[in-house]
Amino acid sequence: MLLQSLLEESTAQALAAEAMATMADLMPLPRSITGNGVRQTLDRLAQITDLKRHEVPSGTQVFDWQVPNEWNLHEAYIVDPNGQRVVDVANSSLHVVGYSVPVRCTMPLEALQAHLHSIPEHPDWIPYRTSYYKESWGFCLRHSDRARLVPGDYTVVIDASLGPGHLSYAECVVPGSGDGEAIIYTHTCHPALANDNLSGMAIAALLARSLSAEKPRLTWRFIFAPGTIGSLTWLSRNQENVQNIRGGLVIGLLADSGPLTYKRSRLGNSVMDRLAEQALTELGGARVLDFEPYGYDERQFCSPGFNLPIGRLTRSPNASYPQYHSSADNLSLVSEGQLAGAFQALARIVGRMDSNRIPINLKPFGEPQLGRRGLYGMTGGQSPGAFQHALLWVLNLADGEHDLAAMASRSGLPFETIEAATAALEATDLMRSHR
Amino acid sequence: MLLQSLLEESTAQALAAEAMATMADLMPLPRSITGNGVRQTLDRLAQITDLKRHEVPSGTQVFDWQVPNEWNLHEAYIVDPNGQRVVDVANSSLHVVGYSVPVRCTMPLEALQAHLHSIPEHPDWIPYRTSYYKESWGFCLRHSDRARLVPGDYTVVIDASLGPGHLSYAECVVPGSGDGEAIIYTHTCHPALANDNLSGMAIAALLARSLSAEKPRLTWRFIFAPGTIGSLTWLSRNQENVQNIRGGLVIGLLADSGPLTYKRSRLGNSVMDRLAEQALTELGGARVLDFEPYGYDERQFCSPGFNLPIGRLTRSPNASYPQYHSSADNLSLVSEGQLAGAFQALARIVGRMDSNRIPINLKPFGEPQLGRRGLYGMTGGQSPGAFQHALLWVLNLADGEHDLAAMASRSGLPFETIEAATAALEATDLMRSHR
Amino acid sequence: MLLQSLLEESTAQALAAEAMATMADLMPLPRSITGNGVRQTLDRLAQITDLKRHEVPSGTQVFDWQVPNEWNLHEAYIVDPNGQRVVDVANSSLHVVGYSVPVRCTMPLEALQAHLHSIPEHPDWIPYRTSYYKESWGFCLRHSDRARLVPGDYTVVIDASLGPGHLSYAECVVPGSGDGEAIIYTHTCHPALANDNLSGMAIAALLARSLSAEKPRLTWRFIFAPGTIGSLTWLSRNQENVQNIRGGLVIGLLADSGPLTYKRSRLGNSVMDRLAEQALTELGGARVLDFEPYGYDERQFCSPGFNLPIGRLTRSPNASYPQYHSSADNLSLVSEGQLAGAFQALARIVGRMDSNRIPINLKPFGEPQLGRRGLYGMTGGQSPGAFQHALLWVLNLADGEHDLAAMASRSGLPFETIEAATAALEATDLMRSHR
Repeated sequence: MLLQSLLEESTAQALAAEAMATMADLMPLPRSITGNGVRQTLDRLAQITDLKRHEVPSGTQVFDWQVPNEWNLHEAYIVDPNGQRVVDVANSSLHVVGYSVPVRCTMPLEALQAHLHSIPEHPDWIPYRTSYYKESWGFCLRHSDRARLVPGDYTVVIDASLGPGHLSYAECVVPGSGDGEAIIYTHTCHPALANDNLSGMAIAALLARSLSAEKPRLTWRFIFAPGTIGSLTWLSRNQENVQNIRGGLVIGLLADSGPLTYKRSRLGNSVMDRLAEQALTELGGARVLDFEPYGYDERQFCSPGFNLPIGRLTRSPNASYPQYHSSADNLSLVSEGQLAGAFQALARIVGRMDSNRIPINLKPFGEPQLGRRGLYGMTGGQSPGAFQHALLWVLNLADGEHDLAAMASRSGLPFETIEAATAALEATDLMRSHR
Repeated sequence: MLLQSLLEESTAQALAAEAMATMADLMPLPRSITGNGVRQTLDRLAQITDLKRHEVPSGTQVFDWQVPNEWNLHEAYIVDPNGQRVVDVANSSLHVVGYSVPVRCTMPLEALQAHLHSIPEHPDWIPYRTSYYKESWGFCLRHSDRARLVPGDYTVVIDASLGPGHLSYAECVVPGSGDGEAIIYTHTCHPALANDNLSGMAIAALLARSLSAEKPRLTWRFIFAPGTIGSLTWLSRNQENVQNIRGGLVIGLLADSGPLTYKRSRLGNSVMDRLAEQALTELGGARVLDFEPYGYDERQFCSPGFNLPIGRLTRSPNASYPQYHSSADNLSLVSEGQLAGAFQALARIVGRMDSNRIPINLKPFGEPQLGRRGLYGMTGGQSPGAFQHALLWVLNLADGEHDLAAMASRSGLPFETIEAATAALEATDLMRSHR
Repeated sequence: MLLQSLLEESTAQALAAEAMATMADLMPLPRSITGNGVRQTLDRLAQITDLKRHEVPSGTQVFDWQVPNEWNLHEAYIVDPNGQRVVDVANSSLHVVGYSVPVRCTMPLEALQAHLHSIPEHPDWIPYRTSYYKESWGFCLRHSDRARLVPGDYTVVIDASLGPGHLSYAECVVPGSGDGEAIIYTHTCHPALANDNLSGMAIAALLARSLSAEKPRLTWRFIFAPGTIGSLTWLSRNQENVQNIRGGLVIGLLADSGPLTYKRSRLGNSVMDRLAEQALTELGGARVLDFEPYGYDERQFCSPGFNLPIGRLTRSPNASYPQYHSSADNLSLVSEGQLAGAFQALARIVGRMDSNRIPINLKPFGEPQLGRRGLYGMTGGQSPGAFQHALLWVLNLADGEHDLAAMASRSGLPFETIEAATAALEATDLMRSHR
């Protein structure tokens, strides 16, 4: 099975440390759904694992949407009546509403207020706001700073370009020996927010690197793209391939203190749903949620026209932790321990997904004689152990209607024991498998 | 949606008061499964709403049954050895066993006893008894009166006609704009029993009048007919139409102090079952029972040859309250408050049944861009409210396999919110619906 | 219905006493999967009921297996350095490992130890061990005796023949009036173990005798054969008939103090599963277990190529009681009371299985008029009793998709009441049944 080394604590810890360093590097880059900040991010991730960059022109039709103009921010600040820069994007990329149109003007505080966003309940946090599809501009700032703004005229500067360009995304593809594909998707559009979603980007890149060193059966495709428009664009350009997708995960928000949280696909009982739920149940302390049509890019993969077996793995999901979409979602919110736990859960799920298959018992009438194939204890009258039980379960359920996940579920045995028994049987004349 | 005004307390209370007055008028009329008392009852209900009368000749074959002879009672009494009228149907229509054959004779008390019915546990109540299909006669009286009967010869007079005539029933049909039909059925055969079933007759007539003022999608057919033989007769004469029935309710016993009680159709998970259960669960304090093949006319609609999506709404169902089928089921047992609650529940169920439909997402690949159609909040990064959620749920589940009831159930959102979101989407290029 | 007399306590007790006497006779016979001890056992059972003996030659291919050589033990003992016979199979057939090859030699204690089996935790019990498919030899003895063995040379004698012969099994077939078959299977290979499985052999023979005196609808086939190779052999020789099997039970271990325990077939919801679970639930105190692919001969009947509706009835199943597979599984472990309870449960399950059928309502549109067929109380207005309810349930569910077991389950009425109502309806023009 794939990624078994990541199940070891020391390997997971080392990857977590590397993820944390990666996140620190990515923190200051000015990401949005398009622009050079995204390209710099993909460059940094390409230092970890092979990435193929895709650039899709603005105006490209993707289903009901169009790829938007490209946005790049050069500088943005507010000067108060005393000449002080009271807000400056040089201090935090969160200070400007994403996709703000260029502006350079002077206006009284009363007029400026309509363009300011803050969080009264958390006066020291800068909120994160965007306006991708409605031309607008604005600044985000600490409520405590906003409260100190004095009456008078303010100079407002947003030096940004918003025009035809490209949407950038990248893929790392680890080719498999068989036909099927699996997807790991993470969103790249959020600026200086650590959990949401530097954690997803770092983990996806490092997981892709680990997988690249192995020989999977499935082709594993890691996609780094902006939220919503990114998954729509990818789906639009890969429509002919989606029928090969056997399962997948949207990942992100994996480093805060919350429990691992799996959100089922729209199908609800797909192989990915069953494997993820089994694995997380075994790990303990995790949550499993039903599908709902809001959240992250699982919305697109699970739209009714696609209805793919793609679930989502996070810790605290969108909007369920107070620091969500604010400057408090920073490196102090996340921890190496939580990153390591996420690596271990992903290794378990990915390894099982890759190993999952449907064995066929070639001698289904009665039990075959395991003893003469070296697969059974030789002195009768005693109870078999877990591996012996697994041999019997696999033989009994190998009727073409049960995959390994279903066998693990019905038998109550660990997936890995079922897989080992299947492999032992496949080495005889008793069994062959297909996916 | 239909009947929204009835959800208002004042409208429901006004209807309840009118129902109570109607019940008082109906109380003294001598009903049975045939006869002039039924015709007088239908005349009184026709003052409320348009009714079409049907008269079916005695002897008409209806499936395994025949329409019985018509029974009309002129007078009936017992004179004791002292010349006193100790029982007289002029005091209560319950005093004679329904469908008693004519009798005029003198007999000693011992012989008379075999023809007397009383309730020892409730000595002041007159029981209600019938003998439709076996020629017989009898009197029902208070057990306290029976105990006072002195030995000696009694004169017994039942002046009744039992011969070829007609079975009478009536319909009020409110035409719909679409193809389907829905049924509301109530039984008209019980004499002076208030809850069972003056309540059903009054509510059905007033509900039909309310619906007649609106423009439903379904054709709503209200049927006023005797128990068992009435529904059999109606089904026999409408066999070619039953495949248009999308749902329906047998109603009755809606004014006693018991909780609203929905009995599922034989199908168990039909649209009527799902809608009624959702509505009653929201109202709280109600009960939902599984189908069983005894009770009221749902027995016939849910016989295996028809197996229609028709459930039953009552308060205390048959035989579950002590006053059942006795003179204690009178106007003091029922209340306007309980009638008003029944109107509100029915309005909710009928309104949803009429609005229920199966939306189809015309752009099912990915989410459509709601913003440019004015259907989405414009500033990103914040959580949507219930209506926004409903838009996403409807789009996601509009795959032709979910009706609005299923969407409400899976999303946990109120039916009305789901309906409003569907209507908003139907007003764009994103959705069309069929029933 | 069949076997109703066994539901009476006195009949069950008398059978239990006869079972106990049978078990005492069978105790000393040297059984294994082949050999003369099995034939003597079948001869003793043939005194109870008609048995047809089958002899299958060694080497016959049965699916993935071959019928093994026949094993007969003449004598076996160990003489210690002092000339004492410290172990002698004349004292207990358990003392020799089943299928031990002949041996006659002298060896020091150290070398002998590798051929000795005992149970340190239960020093006074002789274990039961076999080595059918690997040529080997050994002795089983009390650990307390083993501890007393002195150093020195031991003379070891196993005078056994192991060569071409036959595998013996027997059938008692009670012919039915209809097409279907049912199976009762019990294993005959265990030597002096009372619960496992003299109890199964005695009960099966006595149950077959009781059934032979009745006129079942199903053909009931009782099979007495060794574990695993016996059921494989039977299946191999009866492949063309298995599609007639409507249900069956593997029985055994029915006399210890444990509760009755039904193990579901692989199908999980077959008619046998539903009937057995209903019956045991009514009896109370019983257990129902999910299928798992280890245990007794249900493994073969429920292998994926056959997947038959055959469950298993035991008390404490394999390896779940401390005396399992040891000399402590003797006549003092079992009791007549437990045997009687097993007879009663089997009578109930077998009787219901034989009576189970799928009624068809020939007048499914509306309810038929039961009154003129003498099937309904004649005075209206009162609630029906259980039999009246059963008539309505059977009519309502007799759509060709419900057997009597399903009707009992859905209605909550006893199977026997449903069966009586069905029989009453079959006597009219309203119903016919098929199995």
